[in-house]
Amino acid sequence: MISERMIAMTKSSSAIRAMFEEGMRLAAIHGSENVFDFSLGNPNFPAPAALNRAIAQVLEDTDPTVVHGYMPNAGFPAVRTAVAENLNARFGTAFTAENILMTVGAAGGLNVILNVLLNPGDEVVVIAPYFLEYGNYIRNFGGVLRVVQAEEGTFQIDPAAVAAACNEKTKAVIVNNPNNPTGVIYPAETIRALAEALEARQQELGTSIYLLSDEPYRELAYDGADVPYIPCFYRNTIVGYSWSKSMSLPGERIGYLVIPSEIDDYGLIWDAACTSNRILGFVNAPSLLQLAVARCLNEKTDISAYDRNRQALYNGLTALGFECVYPRGAFYLWMKTPGDEKAFIEAAKRHCLLLVPGSSFAMPGYARLAYCVSPDRIARSMPAFAQLAREFGLGK
Amino acid sequence: MISERMIAMTKSSSAIRAMFEEGMRLAAIHGSENVFDFSLGNPNFPAPAALNRAIAQVLEDTDPTVVHGYMPNAGFPAVRTAVAENLNARFGTAFTAENILMTVGAAGGLNVILNVLLNPGDEVVVIAPYFLEYGNYIRNFGGVLRVVQAEEGTFQIDPAAVAAACNEKTKAVIVNNPNNPTGVIYPAETIRALAEALEARQQELGTSIYLLSDEPYRELAYDGADVPYIPCFYRNTIVGYSWSKSMSLPGERIGYLVIPSEIDDYGLIWDAACTSNRILGFVNAPSLLQLAVARCLNEKTDISAYDRNRQALYNGLTALGFECVYPRGAFYLWMKTPGDEKAFIEAAKRHCLLLVPGSSFAMPGYARLAYCVSPDRIARSMPAFAQLAREFGLGK
Repeated sequence: MISERMIAMTKSSSAIRAMFEEGMRLAAIHGSENVFDFSLGNPNFPAPAALNRAIAQVLEDTDPTVVHGYMPNAGFPAVRTAVAENLNARFGTAFTAENILMTVGAAGGLNVILNVLLNPGDEVVVIAPYFLEYGNYIRNFGGVLRVVQAEEGTFQIDPAAVAAACNEKTKAVIVNNPNNPTGVIYPAETIRALAEALEARQQELGTSIYLLSDEPYRELAYDGADVPYIPCFYRNTIVGYSWSKSMSLPGERIGYLVIPSEIDDYGLIWDAACTSNRILGFVNAPSLLQLAVARCLNEKTDISAYDRNRQALYNGLTALGFECVYPRGAFYLWMKTPGDEKAFIEAAKRHCLLLVPGSSFAMPGYARLAYCVSPDRIARSMPAFAQLAREFGLGK
Repeated sequence: MISERMIAMTKSSSAIRAMFEEGMRLAAIHGSENVFDFSLGNPNFPAPAALNRAIAQVLEDTDPTVVHGYMPNAGFPAVRTAVAENLNARFGTAFTAENILMTVGAAGGLNVILNVLLNPGDEVVVIAPYFLEYGNYIRNFGGVLRVVQAEEGTFQIDPAAVAAACNEKTKAVIVNNPNNPTGVIYPAETIRALAEALEARQQELGTSIYLLSDEPYRELAYDGADVPYIPCFYRNTIVGYSWSKSMSLPGERIGYLVIPSEIDDYGLIWDAACTSNRILGFVNAPSLLQLAVARCLNEKTDISAYDRNRQALYNGLTALGFECVYPRGAFYLWMKTPGDEKAFIEAAKRHCLLLVPGSSFAMPGYARLAYCVSPDRIARSMPAFAQLAREFGLGK
């Protein structure tokens, strides 16, 4: 009776969420202190104190009918101007309020823009391993997913392969930098090569291929790594941003789209995106949080705690013989599973270690560990990982 | 190039919003104090002080990683339990947390549930005049709108007409009580008759017809009027609620769906609705506001100011000879336009009176006035209305 599409999607629903619930089940049996959950990207570190202060100040100094009221569907003009100016100062861009559309998180933003771009049957290229929700977002609007593999071992983008996957029906390519799940950062030379390959492909096809840059992890880059700002490299770029990770606000659903004036069909896309935000039922990004984040744009995210976790987990696991990609950004460690992925994930569960299988990112044979957890959890999990390593014949 | 569907929708985009922008244009010319904008349902009265206090308290007494963090997609279990118990106390229901799905406003909730119910080509019945966004929400999922006229003059539901409009492909009927735009309340006898007609029609067709009760105006009922709680009358009811109007929080995007255990396919629909909330990009209702509203469930909404506006506007306009429906709920006055609707709305604009044409609710020949404005705006608008009445030959 109900939507066949939704029945199918519900059955194959998020393995990450399922693991989260498995964690609650195991915690009830073994005590939560004995369950080492590395499954969910829910930041363990609190939002910067300045954010809570900004919320209190907004409530204090602003008319409540403004704080909690409607505003244009794109968001408060002053908030959008503040975001644009902050980006301009950081990246040398020339954005205005008319390029910034406040959204219900990055997930909301991606849905808004995919709804604008896709006719049924249009294609979107993603690079595996990738966040599986992209597929759902694309299918929401009748779009078709085309998957290109990342380069083996390095998990970098292969620009030629991406360009080759584009055809007359390709509307967009999604790039996630720093990357979930691999922790890889695509450097400027990779982005430049990708931009050149896509420019050439647009010319050949006589179409517009929009690069959707999904950037919730932008602020989480370690060792001083630079995360290139893609609108500076490729004209038809649209950015999706969220403060979920950078300010530890995933529950608040606050982010924005950057729709640069230089993109093909800017006017049409901007107007349609504002309408899309409304008719998909978001209406606008939550108002109080819009006003609060606008007062914290220059807050420097403290990533030192994540950095220490990153070192502890990477060093601990590689010492035990696990093969891991050295994480440069985000808060994920990408590990090759010794032996069969499924058997390994199940064995890990028996040691109360919860990892997300690589197949949840369209790449079996790997596991993702989220290290946005307490440092203590990492330290105390090491004996369990050591047992697991022995079980799979590592480190001999 | 971009979505043909969205190009069409953007062109025909909200006349209510367009009027809002016309208001800003006129204010720039004549001064905002001389523009009498009755177009947008943006509450002019501030949120209850208790709500801002609750926000401050949540920030004070709750771990920030909880306040701003992820929770199950359906919302914080404790918040959902509090909402369920509040409804049970008011309506004698027996809901639990497993019946309450926190949503990004009522618009978010309607999209979540329509995504669950509709296969392409499935039909949804709405009663004209109706909030035109329903059509967009239904078309988002390939659904087809079937419009039934309200009873002439009274704007009550005609249960036989609604039942007759249902066929094998009908998944849902949307009822909005108190009603936007007419201000009418459907009393218990109407809802009982509608329930009986729909029960009989389900039997005949051998299908499930869900009644979607869109209730953002539930708390705004005047003269002690009772707004029947539809799940108590019709088993296959799903309720969409929002605090946008009752607590003056339209910008915050906070509401919930009630999915009673008694409905057909409850388990399937509940699971699919949680997934739907996630994959449409809402993910969850904003977390801080969830926690704050849960502490204000017993706040009594003060509707006395709206009530005074209602009396002032209704009495003022009928004295001038305008034909209006006596408003019993919500904050809208529904007026018959003397002469041609379009000419009347344009003439009103020349007097800096902004009204929404009835055709924006699929019923030309009427106008909607939102009286969620300052009492002063109503008082000061009366000379302009008097001139307008004279222009259209009223009150002679």
